[in-house]
Amino acid sequence: MTMTETETETETVPLGDYLFQRIHQLGITKILGCPGDFNMTLLDHIFNVEGLDWVGNCNELNASYAADGYGRVRGVPGVLVTTYGVGELSAINGVAGAFAEHVPVLHIVGTPARPEMEYRMWMHHTLPAGTDSESPDHHVYQRMSAPVRCVCAALDDVDTLAEEVDRVLITIWRKSLPGYIYVPIDIVNAPVPKSKLDVELKLKIINPDPSLEDALVLDILDAIYKSKSPTILVDILARRHRSRKLVMELIDKTQIPSFSTDLAKGFVDEDHPAFVGQYNGRLSLPGVAEAVERSDVVINIGPLISDSNTGGFTRFIEDKHLIVLHPSYIEIFGVRHEGLHFLPVLEKLVAQIDKSKLPKLRTVESFNIGPPKVVESPADISTSYFYKYIGDNFLKANDIVIADSGTAQYGINEARFPSNINFTTQLYYSSIGFALPAALGACVAQREIDAEGGAKARVVLFEGDGSAMMTIQELSTITRNGYNPTIFLINNSGYTIERAIHGPEAKYNDISPNWHWTELFKTFGADESKYFAAKVTTKEELEDLLASKEFAEAESKARFVEVVMDKMDIPWRLSGQMAIMGEKVKQWSIDYSSKRGEVPRAV
Amino acid sequence: MTMTETETETETVPLGDYLFQRIHQLGITKILGCPGDFNMTLLDHIFNVEGLDWVGNCNELNASYAADGYGRVRGVPGVLVTTYGVGELSAINGVAGAFAEHVPVLHIVGTPARPEMEYRMWMHHTLPAGTDSESPDHHVYQRMSAPVRCVCAALDDVDTLAEEVDRVLITIWRKSLPGYIYVPIDIVNAPVPKSKLDVELKLKIINPDPSLEDALVLDILDAIYKSKSPTILVDILARRHRSRKLVMELIDKTQIPSFSTDLAKGFVDEDHPAFVGQYNGRLSLPGVAEAVERSDVVINIGPLISDSNTGGFTRFIEDKHLIVLHPSYIEIFGVRHEGLHFLPVLEKLVAQIDKSKLPKLRTVESFNIGPPKVVESPADISTSYFYKYIGDNFLKANDIVIADSGTAQYGINEARFPSNINFTTQLYYSSIGFALPAALGACVAQREIDAEGGAKARVVLFEGDGSAMMTIQELSTITRNGYNPTIFLINNSGYTIERAIHGPEAKYNDISPNWHWTELFKTFGADESKYFAAKVTTKEELEDLLASKEFAEAESKARFVEVVMDKMDIPWRLSGQMAIMGEKVKQWSIDYSSKRGEVPRAV
Ligand SMILES: Cc1ncc(C[n+]2csc(CCOP(=O)(O)OP(=O)(O)O)c2C)c(N)n1
Ligand SMILES: Cc1ncc(C[n+]2csc(CCOP(=O)(O)OP(=O)(O)O)c2C)c(N)n1
Repeated sequence: MTMTETETETETVPLGDYLFQRIHQLGITKILGCPGDFNMTLLDHIFNVEGLDWVGNCNELNASYAADGYGRVRGVPGVLVTTYGVGELSAINGVAGAFAEHVPVLHIVGTPARPEMEYRMWMHHTLPAGTDSESPDHHVYQRMSAPVRCVCAALDDVDTLAEEVDRVLITIWRKSLPGYIYVPIDIVNAPVPKSKLDVELKLKIINPDPSLEDALVLDILDAIYKSKSPTILVDILARRHRSRKLVMELIDKTQIPSFSTDLAKGFVDEDHPAFVGQYNGRLSLPGVAEAVERSDVVINIGPLISDSNTGGFTRFIEDKHLIVLHPSYIEIFGVRHEGLHFLPVLEKLVAQIDKSKLPKLRTVESFNIGPPKVVESPADISTSYFYKYIGDNFLKANDIVIADSGTAQYGINEARFPSNINFTTQLYYSSIGFALPAALGACVAQREIDAEGGAKARVVLFEGDGSAMMTIQELSTITRNGYNPTIFLINNSGYTIERAIHGPEAKYNDISPNWHWTELFKTFGADESKYFAAKVTTKEELEDLLASKEFAEAESKARFVEVVMDKMDIPWRLSGQMAIMGEKVKQWSIDYSSKRGEVPRAV
Repeated sequence: MTMTETETETETVPLGDYLFQRIHQLGITKILGCPGDFNMTLLDHIFNVEGLDWVGNCNELNASYAADGYGRVRGVPGVLVTTYGVGELSAINGVAGAFAEHVPVLHIVGTPARPEMEYRMWMHHTLPAGTDSESPDHHVYQRMSAPVRCVCAALDDVDTLAEEVDRVLITIWRKSLPGYIYVPIDIVNAPVPKSKLDVELKLKIINPDPSLEDALVLDILDAIYKSKSPTILVDILARRHRSRKLVMELIDKTQIPSFSTDLAKGFVDEDHPAFVGQYNGRLSLPGVAEAVERSDVVINIGPLISDSNTGGFTRFIEDKHLIVLHPSYIEIFGVRHEGLHFLPVLEKLVAQIDKSKLPKLRTVESFNIGPPKVVESPADISTSYFYKYIGDNFLKANDIVIADSGTAQYGINEARFPSNINFTTQLYYSSIGFALPAALGACVAQREIDAEGGAKARVVLFEGDGSAMMTIQELSTITRNGYNPTIFLINNSGYTIERAIHGPEAKYNDISPNWHWTELFKTFGADESKYFAAKVTTKEELEDLLASKEFAEAESKARFVEVVMDKMDIPWRLSGQMAIMGEKVKQWSIDYSSKRGEVPRAV
């Protein structure tokens, strides 16, 4: 049967199909989340898309963390579906973390039908408006999520469904931030012209004025050619905006001495001949801060300048030496051009840069970077030893490494990474419990990378006991789906990082004691074929385990290693961060109080 | 040493002490929550208050559910402390549930110091403003929580600290809704005049115009005296506003035939001579709806008229027969007086009502209430059997009973409650996973009630497997603190209520299989002296267990009973609710679509 043009044009698919087809076109194979009364008919459409599947989470916060973890690893939006109110609010903290750290996440929320919303029916999951039990405003949750998203479509008009879905996907992709789609349950099957699925999503970032780009590229090239000691400093927004290939091309091509920040650790291969060190203001290894700050041209790609990513605001790079390539502006020696995305600029830069015009570059050795401080611990396994050992003996090229907030986040910097490590830590938003479900999301991403013939990657998680407790049930989703991360659980009897900050012996820094960590997989129903679990308290045990045949053979399973450390083993970067911030905060307080005529107060 | 008056007047306490002293004055002995960088110095002040202690939770969502559960049982605000952003947003869904269902909860959030907020520093846990990485607006979270609170104080001005704290506590108490106090870390030790602690908190509810109250009371009395068939219908806001004693006095005194709604089940003692039945529109037992709806004067106290609490909007009480006593208005036969709280009115009513002037009342027997429908199940233990058996053989007077959303929430209605059951279920907000931490909160409340010489109460929880997974780690907080709830875990292999609604065999309604439920306490570190766990799959096993000496002797421990039921065992009230709502939704959809010129769509 042949179709006339009009027939083809009027062929339709239900909105649900359209939405999930579009999502699948981005290379996404798994939808995360939890079902609910207002999203189940939508979820049915997942199964209409070949190659797309559902991974149910134990709760919605975990689902959002998993979607975030996926987005970080893949650079493609993690997608979660939740139900109206109860589900979406449970997930909002996870989405906020993705927003803070620029991760593409799509949060789809199934809502009551449009008539129920318009007629303000007292459906379950609604909130009375105001404090005197006025009838519910069904749009209240949409307003609550506004600060944690870059775009939102509340689908309502059957005539613009495809356009609205596309607008959200494109914006999430370009901004690398979370976005929301609210799907009223009565619109799930609304017809959308099928032909719209063939229209390519305009994902490519194009700046409004290419001639301005050209001018800026010339300025930057000129600055580099004239400089005596150029450096490249890569930060996390470079990864978020999928520029790793370009950045590494720039470094490969020029061999300009290069640095990553703590948030972007591993972005520049740490075994690359041009890699000098990790720059985090005063909390860098000896020699690093000088190396960056005395450079006469610092090309800073994708900065995120939060307290912990700048050594407590001790990043001192003078404007007159600084070129910033940012997703929302280009800045050259103090002159900022707003509204330009760095990607097209970087592309031109890489294409045009001429090595022969570069100054004579310093060798990495000439920077004379000092060794890390070693912190002693009464326990046999110390953080100083552990992370260094893991870096030297366990991590492999292409690993996906995740460290949760806590001592793990600071300790991990003792590890020298092999090449192409995809590292994630929430050093800025710092919501604990994030990392375990994020590792699940990373496993989902890893399978897709594998399937696309990408680098064989392993997922490796470092997680404190206090953080792990927050989201522990998601372990069961990992084995249920046959994923095989390696999890190092740091059992240091409570919230050690908080003990370091305040109240070392305070009751509030203790956690539920005596968890049998290595029993968790079993209790959560995992079959022995799906997991391996062990506990180590000494260096010897750890080293034997990691070297054992048993452990190696368990690589296809989820591996869980409980590592016992001391309650007060504080990585030096953490104590350093506290000391610096303590001083800053005191200064601000004096300044602020004097303005208000108050006595400054300790914080 | 004697003090002059001026010296006494200028004696101060730190804000932290003031806050927690005030909280303790309300009879509260435990603070829930999780520590964080921005609240630890505040938490120190808990320990300055004799009789006040900290109960740390595994995560903040659980803490909010626990505070909510506490508030429901005690009628006194549950208090949780979280940290800025990450903690407070994790808790927001729990607070929303308390808001929806009118539970007093105080959410204290520790924030960055005032200078950091004013100078918009990029502290960890902040959110960049907008999508182009503008510096963070530190007040964004305060705006996000606005729809789920009745009052908020962002402490900032050292001169009004006591007043602000008092204002929040008083408003929470009177409104019976959640409120927030934001405490910047630099204000924790600000001095507050100690004498302010002696000023009584004005908790008592007083209406602006007592003469209007008098007039309304006369009108209500007149209506009752003239009526032929008065009834009393009690709903959940009656419990929230601490009116149980008054209401029971009214019923005792008058013996007017009385009903509770499903949300308020057990409020009117079900063995009281005047108790007729549970009214939930068309989803009541045979005879109940007629009894209420044919009454010529229905005194409806504290209504919350959501879909599931009205048999899917099938509550048909005509205005001309209806008197509503509500926290924000009094309504008599269609005439509403806004801004009057029912408590003072009810007090006068109870004092003035004269039994001799009442009509001859119908006896409970004369209503001829029918028996519940029995739903068959392929499993030996069915919901129909189980809840009835529990009601008849396990529950005792004064028990605190909690049922999570799911089949438990509907099935529990098969249980005939002994007297003075304090029952909680989130039938309106319906956030699953709520009930397990709420049971922890209930245990906290129960200890306080015991200590005050109140009725010896037990905490009894009914919870589905899918719900339990959402918040399971909180089990460890229960045994860690030596609490002893009895937990019935309904293992029916997934989200049964959702299977009933849509997708009985859909993948998204399955959950992680094979959890070893009875091993959880052990795995979470509980000592054998702290818990008892068993699994039952047959009636015989259940009945033997409940009758056993072993089980009885374990009453001082946390008792966990895994009850295996069929995957598709749907309580009749649930199928009824679905059928009714299906019809309603269809009607609304036809109406709505015709207005928009659209084809109505199934939902
Ligand atoms: C959701 C959330 N709640 C609370 C905090 C405050 N906080 C930051 S780190 C931390 C303790 C982490 O302890 P753990 O995971 O055991 O790691 P450790 O430092 O002990 O190695 C806490 C409670 C937070 N950042 N996020
Ligand atoms: C936080 C949250 N997420 C999702 C839902 C949607 N939902 C309502 S009931 C339910 C299933 C409950 O299953 P279970 O606890 O196992 O009880 P059952 O009905 O199987 O007895 C779900 C997923 C919800 N109400 N709240």
